[in-house]
Amino acid sequence: MNFRIVAKIISIALKMEAALMALPLLSALIFGESVKPFLLTAAVCFVAALFLDSQREVLMPGIREGLAATGLTWIAISLGGMLPFLFSGSISSVMDAFFETVSGFTTTGASILTDIEALPKSVLLWRSFTHWLGGMGILVFMMAFLPNSAGAQMNLMKAESPGPSISKLVPRSRDTARVLYLIYAILTAGTFLLLVLLRMPVFDALCITFGCAGTGGFGVLNSSCASYTTAQQIIITVSMLSFGMNFNFYFLIGIRRFSEAFSMEEIRYYLMVVAAAVALMTADLIRHGLYGPGRALLETCFHTGSLMTTTGFGIADLNAWPSLSRAVCIFLSLLGACAGSTGGGFKVGRAILLVKSYIREISIMMRPGTVKHVHVDGKAVDENVVQTAEVYFFVYCMIMGISVVLVALNGFDWTSTVTSVIATFNNIGPGFGMVGTAGNYSAFSTFSKLVLSADMLIGRLEIFPILLLFARSTWKKF
Amino acid sequence: MNFRIVAKIISIALKMEAALMALPLLSALIFGESVKPFLLTAAVCFVAALFLDSQREVLMPGIREGLAATGLTWIAISLGGMLPFLFSGSISSVMDAFFETVSGFTTTGASILTDIEALPKSVLLWRSFTHWLGGMGILVFMMAFLPNSAGAQMNLMKAESPGPSISKLVPRSRDTARVLYLIYAILTAGTFLLLVLLRMPVFDALCITFGCAGTGGFGVLNSSCASYTTAQQIIITVSMLSFGMNFNFYFLIGIRRFSEAFSMEEIRYYLMVVAAAVALMTADLIRHGLYGPGRALLETCFHTGSLMTTTGFGIADLNAWPSLSRAVCIFLSLLGACAGSTGGGFKVGRAILLVKSYIREISIMMRPGTVKHVHVDGKAVDENVVQTAEVYFFVYCMIMGISVVLVALNGFDWTSTVTSVIATFNNIGPGFGMVGTAGNYSAFSTFSKLVLSADMLIGRLEIFPILLLFARSTWKKF
Repeated sequence: MNFRIVAKIISIALKMEAALMALPLLSALIFGESVKPFLLTAAVCFVAALFLDSQREVLMPGIREGLAATGLTWIAISLGGMLPFLFSGSISSVMDAFFETVSGFTTTGASILTDIEALPKSVLLWRSFTHWLGGMGILVFMMAFLPNSAGAQMNLMKAESPGPSISKLVPRSRDTARVLYLIYAILTAGTFLLLVLLRMPVFDALCITFGCAGTGGFGVLNSSCASYTTAQQIIITVSMLSFGMNFNFYFLIGIRRFSEAFSMEEIRYYLMVVAAAVALMTADLIRHGLYGPGRALLETCFHTGSLMTTTGFGIADLNAWPSLSRAVCIFLSLLGACAGSTGGGFKVGRAILLVKSYIREISIMMRPGTVKHVHVDGKAVDENVVQTAEVYFFVYCMIMGISVVLVALNGFDWTSTVTSVIATFNNIGPGFGMVGTAGNYSAFSTFSKLVLSADMLIGRLEIFPILLLFARSTWKKF
Repeated sequence: MNFRIVAKIISIALKMEAALMALPLLSALIFGESVKPFLLTAAVCFVAALFLDSQREVLMPGIREGLAATGLTWIAISLGGMLPFLFSGSISSVMDAFFETVSGFTTTGASILTDIEALPKSVLLWRSFTHWLGGMGILVFMMAFLPNSAGAQMNLMKAESPGPSISKLVPRSRDTARVLYLIYAILTAGTFLLLVLLRMPVFDALCITFGCAGTGGFGVLNSSCASYTTAQQIIITVSMLSFGMNFNFYFLIGIRRFSEAFSMEEIRYYLMVVAAAVALMTADLIRHGLYGPGRALLETCFHTGSLMTTTGFGIADLNAWPSLSRAVCIFLSLLGACAGSTGGGFKVGRAILLVKSYIREISIMMRPGTVKHVHVDGKAVDENVVQTAEVYFFVYCMIMGISVVLVALNGFDWTSTVTSVIATFNNIGPGFGMVGTAGNYSAFSTFSKLVLSADMLIGRLEIFPILLLFARSTWKKF
């Protein structure tokens, strides 16, 4: 591996992080809070960046460098991003601050804080801002906006983007990154404006918007979204679901290829799953007499959006829901959002690929010797992509299984143990039991927090960039 | 599909089942119990068989017929096999009797009985005997011993045998079936004799041996195996682990190809997993102060054997175990025994294939364009086998997920809901919570029992033969 390329990329990311401290710093000035945590963080990140910066030009990273740089960059910016929590005294333990920051950047939204409202507003803003940055991707951001990163190519973008395959919307990858951020900015602005119009306080609206956009889930109130008005909750629901859709859809809408946009299989299955889950859970909640029809519909829409897009906002305590609804919730959490969105989870597109490859397998079993391709959106899918998805599924399950065994060392109840892993690995945030919408991750051991932090990173970066860091061959010099 | 071939195969199986009533009938005479249930059952099975028998010669079944015949035969013999429970009045509900019989033939060992000891001994013997019959396979049995089934070929055996691929031990598949049954008989006789030598009552020894051999788990006492002596428990442990090994191993030993036998990767990984699980759980139990070292070792060895081979005998209430040990237990339950053994679960061999194909995938990602094969036991594995294993894993998880959602309709606690599906689909028997070693499946709704019965069949026949029955194209006439 060429270490210089990797160091250079990390150095750019740290410089960018130093610059991004401007936003919480500005808010600290507005709210009359201490600016010291952000100034200090910016200084530390900048010095670290200078230390790593060895060359003027970024060379083209290969696949291996792209993957390793992605994994290491995310770890580096999480280490930098935890400093405001530590410098402001909001979180005293380094492990906790790292967990909280990884949870932010990976758009998980799992928190170790027991009283969110006690934190300075500027720190809360930084906490939510990490969702927005992590949602579309740190490296995609660099590629889109920083002048000296023009050489950083598809290999970086591939490593960071959620989903089985990223299609270049436009010929140059830099332009693709910009188009993605343009869509992201428009949707973000829309959510923010609607929430402000519905009289949500500007600070809340900004933080909640960041949470929706990155499908993160950090709120600013201890009750998450339960105390907002019904109208505001509906906007949050729609916003979460919008950010969970494949951004290719918006791009096609933008260039007026409507029929192509609406015939995207992933979008159609995504909406079908949402509709089915809402119908099933609404019926279940009414049957058990938990809510009236109107309230039941709102709650299930909100939580379907929140869990399937892996955002993790809550307006009810799901621990009280009947077991069918809870099973549906877990199913949605595992399935996740569309590929090419800011959401996490296994991804609808990947599931479609797998179901189709299974149907093909059966038909080949029936008539051996025939050759069949898997088709998505009317096009034959490359066999490598199909096989990678199949392997991905296996590794996905293995990592969850191993994590459950490791987290089980805490000796907590089964539901909390299993759902804490599901909720972090799929970047959702809350699970059931102790880590339900009303709970948090503060009770876990340091070792468990480390395991769950790794799960968040592995889940967000879709396994390979992080796993590769553990391969001996990665650390060989070429 | 050629329905005549399928009907013929089912008819042979039913005639065989009628003949097999001889064993419980004999025991009824010995114990002075009613012979009526078995005589009636034999009569019903025989009449049904005559009704289905349309031709003299069994034609060669194709893959499709092989799979469908396997699925339907298993359903037919379960319907026939439940009659002794109903005719003797041991079980009053048809659904319960069907569940119990499917559980027997699929070697699951999940029971709806609350008081096993209240049943006539002859009925208990039939209940355990179904394990022995189902363990190696009903159709393999037919192929090995019935004169007019010589035409039934590899396609049947492939459909019924546990594991990703069955290798023909000897050139003719009929001889392979006989070799398998010879090994099976020797191991069965060994277990029985050792248990009798250790002064277990002959009736208990016979039933427990059937349970070990088929990796089933039906006992004859309400306490399962807890009241047997330590020496007897050790023999049961060794026996379970032996039946969970790939029978190719014994074949190679039998023909004195020792080095080949001991270099079988599946056997080596199987033993490694057993050792690791025992070490981990023993340490965990001692750490929590549940038992002293000796007792902890016995308990973990027994339950590692019982769960990994998917037998399901118990000597302790696993609900009381700490969560790490319980997580290991669930891992063992899912992994399962060796391919080509009588055990269920996902199978060690298939897991090895998947892990290797994953490692290959990573290395291809690093160096695109290279072609690599997956090697097991030093030989390159056919790509179709690899891909089928990958698809199998996906379908395996999907079916478990859907089953959990359906069983969740009962509204039971999460642990019972999830582990009841794991325990039936992997043909283990007991899970945790309500369905723990001390509990049973009587509280589930009729619908859940139907779902779990289907899971047992799908799990035992490795998905495709049962799933195929739901495909429209299966029912087309050619």
